[in-house]
Amino acid sequence: MKIAMFLYDKMTALDFVGPFQVFAVMPGAEVITVAKKTGPVDEDSGLHLLNANAGIDQVDAADVLCLPGGIDNTHVQNDPEVMDWIRKIDATTTWTTSVCTGSLILGAAGLLKGVKATTHWAALPGLETFGAIPVKERVVRDGKYLTGGGVTAGIDMALTLLAEAFDDRTSQAIQLALEYNPQPPFDTGSPEKAPQDIQEMVIQMFTEGAEQAQRPN
Amino acid sequence: MKIAMFLYDKMTALDFVGPFQVFAVMPGAEVITVAKKTGPVDEDSGLHLLNANAGIDQVDAADVLCLPGGIDNTHVQNDPEVMDWIRKIDATTTWTTSVCTGSLILGAAGLLKGVKATTHWAALPGLETFGAIPVKERVVRDGKYLTGGGVTAGIDMALTLLAEAFDDRTSQAIQLALEYNPQPPFDTGSPEKAPQDIQEMVIQMFTEGAEQAQRPN
Repeated sequence: MKIAMFLYDKMTALDFVGPFQVFAVMPGAEVITVAKKTGPVDEDSGLHLLNANAGIDQVDAADVLCLPGGIDNTHVQNDPEVMDWIRKIDATTTWTTSVCTGSLILGAAGLLKGVKATTHWAALPGLETFGAIPVKERVVRDGKYLTGGGVTAGIDMALTLLAEAFDDRTSQAIQLALEYNPQPPFDTGSPEKAPQDIQEMVIQMFTEGAEQAQRPN
Repeated sequence: MKIAMFLYDKMTALDFVGPFQVFAVMPGAEVITVAKKTGPVDEDSGLHLLNANAGIDQVDAADVLCLPGGIDNTHVQNDPEVMDWIRKIDATTTWTTSVCTGSLILGAAGLLKGVKATTHWAALPGLETFGAIPVKERVVRDGKYLTGGGVTAGIDMALTLLAEAFDDRTSQAIQLALEYNPQPPFDTGSPEKAPQDIQEMVIQMFTEGAEQAQRPN
């Protein structure tokens, strides 16, 4: 099973590495990291932390495509070469998946028209722009499209995919291997649970982050 | 606040990127990724996915040190230069932290004698070898040592650190920003919860993984 994970500048590292760590130990899985060009990718910390193994010109098909999110990925949505590549790969996949605002990239590629999908809670209304049907759930499946909520939801999305693509036992074993027995110190992980002032802090953080992301490197 | 995260060959990417994503958005935090030498690090997938910004000869002090784990990191434990560096940095930190088997590296450096600590459930007895007191909890604090359980526990560990180092509200806001509202499809994330046959699958997976990790690149 060939799994292509798309990387791009100013993406969020955990959006990618969460599902990556699940996929990497899937029996028989071959994970490739694909960016516009092979080499280092500057995720949103500015640390050039990640490397892509392949450029989009080197990958023509995949069983699974996975799009991580980023605080602002309009530069990807506006790149016709990347949009063409995503449509080309999607035409070959058994599963097309996303984490966080990765679904906005799938939407911009025209793949989510009339499709139920999710994204980061703060970006959910944005899905409608692309004709998708926004659903406020952690993981949403509609046909072959499997989309996850914000950042950490990629782990839940990938474990869901694993259960669908293999069986429950394989997914359960990988959950145990990754000791995914979450115990966050607080219970403020969704806007329904977090107090209003905490939500405002986060919206402020995103506004500043998106402004930074729109500046050239 | 300077946060040094140590990277090494055959480490597990999510052990590092989980807490990294929390630290990266901490107010006033400067995260540096440090390896024996600057450049690409070959984590356990073999994809050369990560990059270190600095070599150990370039970093002399940090407010926070973080050691991610890996399926077998005895090569790090047996490296006297790295052990010296870890002891040197630890002498300067306010917090010394680990995820998964990262605590075995701290133990090998002699830092956990008589200290309560945790690690991946499958590695817990190994902590005693270094005179540490193994505790079966998701996140364990003893003085300035904050250790997390397996792989995904790094997210919980880092949010706990954030609450200690700043305040609850900052940690709560970052939890909401990362939409850390976990909903794994199963409830098999710890050996207490997973059936015996699933545990055996994982032990088998680790035995094979450790054998692979001991082979030279």
